[in-house]
Amino acid sequence: MTKQISDAAELSSVTNAQVTLIQIDNYGPWTVTPEPRREVDLQTLQSRLYADLSQLIGNREGYVFFTRFDNMVAVTNGLGTDDHALIQESVANRYPVTVSLSIAADASPAAALGVATDQLQRAGSAQDGGRTEILRGDPVAEEARTDDDVQIAHFDVNDATGKYTDRLNEFDSFINIEQGYAELMRYMRRSHESLSFFVGGDNIIAVCDSVDEEGYLDAIEHVREAVGVDLKVGVGTDRTAQAAGMAAKHALETCREEYTDVEFA
Amino acid sequence: MTKQISDAAELSSVTNAQVTLIQIDNYGPWTVTPEPRREVDLQTLQSRLYADLSQLIGNREGYVFFTRFDNMVAVTNGLGTDDHALIQESVANRYPVTVSLSIAADASPAAALGVATDQLQRAGSAQDGGRTEILRGDPVAEEARTDDDVQIAHFDVNDATGKYTDRLNEFDSFINIEQGYAELMRYMRRSHESLSFFVGGDNIIAVCDSVDEEGYLDAIEHVREAVGVDLKVGVGTDRTAQAAGMAAKHALETCREEYTDVEFA
Amino acid sequence: MTKQISDAAELSSVTNAQVTLIQIDNYGPWTVTPEPRREVDLQTLQSRLYADLSQLIGNREGYVFFTRFDNMVAVTNGLGTDDHALIQESVANRYPVTVSLSIAADASPAAALGVATDQLQRAGSAQDGGRTEILRGDPVAEEARTDDDVQIAHFDVNDATGKYTDRLNEFDSFINIEQGYAELMRYMRRSHESLSFFVGGDNIIAVCDSVDEEGYLDAIEHVREAVGVDLKVGVGTDRTAQAAGMAAKHALETCREEYTDVEFA
Amino acid sequence: MTKQISDAAELSSVTNAQVTLIQIDNYGPWTVTPEPRREVDLQTLQSRLYADLSQLIGNREGYVFFTRFDNMVAVTNGLGTDDHALIQESVANRYPVTVSLSIAADASPAAALGVATDQLQRAGSAQDGGRTEILRGDPVAEEARTDDDVQIAHFDVNDATGKYTDRLNEFDSFINIEQGYAELMRYMRRSHESLSFFVGGDNIIAVCDSVDEEGYLDAIEHVREAVGVDLKVGVGTDRTAQAAGMAAKHALETCREEYTDVEFA
Repeated sequence: MTKQISDAAELSSVTNAQVTLIQIDNYGPWTVTPEPRREVDLQTLQSRLYADLSQLIGNREGYVFFTRFDNMVAVTNGLGTDDHALIQESVANRYPVTVSLSIAADASPAAALGVATDQLQRAGSAQDGGRTEILRGDPVAEEARTDDDVQIAHFDVNDATGKYTDRLNEFDSFINIEQGYAELMRYMRRSHESLSFFVGGDNIIAVCDSVDEEGYLDAIEHVREAVGVDLKVGVGTDRTAQAAGMAAKHALETCREEYTDVEFA
Repeated sequence: MTKQISDAAELSSVTNAQVTLIQIDNYGPWTVTPEPRREVDLQTLQSRLYADLSQLIGNREGYVFFTRFDNMVAVTNGLGTDDHALIQESVANRYPVTVSLSIAADASPAAALGVATDQLQRAGSAQDGGRTEILRGDPVAEEARTDDDVQIAHFDVNDATGKYTDRLNEFDSFINIEQGYAELMRYMRRSHESLSFFVGGDNIIAVCDSVDEEGYLDAIEHVREAVGVDLKVGVGTDRTAQAAGMAAKHALETCREEYTDVEFA
Repeated sequence: MTKQISDAAELSSVTNAQVTLIQIDNYGPWTVTPEPRREVDLQTLQSRLYADLSQLIGNREGYVFFTRFDNMVAVTNGLGTDDHALIQESVANRYPVTVSLSIAADASPAAALGVATDQLQRAGSAQDGGRTEILRGDPVAEEARTDDDVQIAHFDVNDATGKYTDRLNEFDSFINIEQGYAELMRYMRRSHESLSFFVGGDNIIAVCDSVDEEGYLDAIEHVREAVGVDLKVGVGTDRTAQAAGMAAKHALETCREEYTDVEFA
Repeated sequence: MTKQISDAAELSSVTNAQVTLIQIDNYGPWTVTPEPRREVDLQTLQSRLYADLSQLIGNREGYVFFTRFDNMVAVTNGLGTDDHALIQESVANRYPVTVSLSIAADASPAAALGVATDQLQRAGSAQDGGRTEILRGDPVAEEARTDDDVQIAHFDVNDATGKYTDRLNEFDSFINIEQGYAELMRYMRRSHESLSFFVGGDNIIAVCDSVDEEGYLDAIEHVREAVGVDLKVGVGTDRTAQAAGMAAKHALETCREEYTDVEFA
């Protein structure tokens, strides 16, 4: 994997997000073979698999996002190929399905996921019954890792409880949150090569490429204008997703206390 | 609860969706007290609570949707107040958080959720530490239940694997699916008082009020025009969410085999 | 299934325990194929499968005991063949292994389990790869069920915390509890056709056949003499394991408050 | 913590098992406050907590045994104080109960557990509501760790399926297995300062102090004479429980293939 930066000299720091694409093998066909499986069991399977991956990856300082559940995205700086293999084996030992894993790193999280996706697509279709337990890609070498590799931005909605949860029909609260998320995910993807994930409540976590204060202010302004949802964000940068994410949470608490829109840890 | 239908004589059947709003009590404050809790644990907690509710409600023939995870929506025809109380107790016995439940029924799923939300809001704020384990509202009386009470529509994206998963950067696949979902949820809410939920992969399940074939064709056309995502849908109607949902899945299989856009079970 | 009682006239009530033997299919070979699987994953699989069965059966008013984990024993009065089939399907949908189920009922819990075991053995060996998802035996017909069908005895050790946990090396506390359990399980099996299961802490739950006060006093006396462990017991009888078990727990609380050895609900 | 060996010169290797006692805080009172909680929920809570600890500790190369469920014993070589603190925090974030942890190391596993127990008892009673989340004791310093620190012996019953599972009433199979376990646990504790744990099926895993072939043959002979149960054992020694345990499993496979009673990896 290569990290191409044209003018690194101008940057105080450069991220190097290691991203892992997790794909349940041949899941679509499995859910309807020999006939459609009960939805309750599929929902239970999917959410528990996600919970288990949260623990397996989280206990190694990474973050995983549920995304579409059959395709999940993880930030795995610090996890080597052996860690990935063990996670893959552990899933196979406990579930009726298996997972394929593809790893890539880049200053741009979107580019890293692009490489990871491409590696997996070249191995075969997501619905190819013969393509199982693929493990591709190269983790960042231990000696190349730095304390600025991962930037995590933790957004939430200003006074979501007061403005939505305690006032609107729950579905309309949900529509508002979803709209805010849909706008933010597209804007951060296009403008900043960032990957943004809804993580429940009114929270969105984005994996970013050295976005600065102006960049976050622009994103917040864009979402406010487009759909009328007010966001704030705390940002942390560190060696692993876990450390960066916890710093971002503390920065978000500062936003809350000081009524600011953007805080860096 | 009342079921007001102006011209029932014109309808061959009338739904009566029983909807339960599930809200984690005082969850926002809990997640940052005394300081922010590790995201991996919050994700694990949320997804396991959802999995457990899937089982607790699913084993009683209901459906539950993760929605925002701290607020979940369930279709609970067939579950009485005692069933709800037992589920509430079971959560308290196994989690560090408690849940409040509010039940309502109406021909319109959106109206039912509106009543359920209102009942809970009147009991106090979602972030009021003293408002815990509320249980409000009236389930449909056993003698009032009919075989047409629940209409479930199960949508998926045409050839999502071929068009998205096997070709695009996974995040862009996800953006497409999300856009399709965001459009559909709003359209079905406004035009048909229906509640639509993303359930993973390329699947959306909607709880509907006797929507007919034309209504579904309109919705599919609207999403195609607005965001370019092609959907198809299978529809089932029955006494419980589980039975209606399984019928909808079988109807969706018929769409797949016969290249049709809408099939009723 | 037959219920043979020589002198029912002398009894005020007659139990009719419905027992289900749950056996993981071909589990031994699976754990070492193609080579030994990691113990952590086996332990996780086993304990979660047990937790899920606890919920699946418990939500239908039954009790399940972990026994050897690859063979579990449940008291399933109130669960019909369809309930058993659904539980079997739900396990197959969520685990890499499947289970066989065999149901029988008898006044004697040991005799019921004997019939259930025999039915399953006749279907093939526990390590026959071709014998999967067997479902055999007849639940008690709804009209034959009575409020005295299940007798549950809940034992615990007098002052286990003061005498063992807070004083001895934890392993020696455990040896004492295990010795008490081993004696009780054999005595209750031989003298009363009862099935006793350790359920954690210092608790043992026995499924019994109309054992009276003298019978329980004898059992407690036997364990005290044989291994020096002092037990007390609360006993409940009801239509289902859940109801009988909860009554037994309340009776045990009475023992605790009134320093008695045996209490009937 | 000290490791006293009188004549180390005679030994080719010396174990140094790091043992952690895990105790649910004030669990007994919690289970009956304000009134007895449903057994199904307690069983689910206990077995899931054990499954989670299996993952939390297993992902760090340790082993944990369910023991009495409210008191569990882990072999934690390689886990430092920070790892223990994180596990403690993770449990508090996801369960309605908390755990206390006490760590000690010694050539003798029983002595290590004795120290760990003593440390916890000195902090207060297991049923003292004010004694929560204790974390005591010293892990083995990284520089003191060796490749011989942990000896794991994995026992199983010869032809358990053929002799018991496929022939006897399941409860009588279980009684036989339990008797074999009860004898072995006492013998290994008294003769070899080892801690033996039933782990499901017909499997027992013991944490041992450099027991040699004769020692294992004696133990097997003792169990055969005392209760008529035939055991075999594979033994592995390594830096962590996970590595030693996997070696033991492979050695046990050798016993199976070559019809031997004891094999060292």
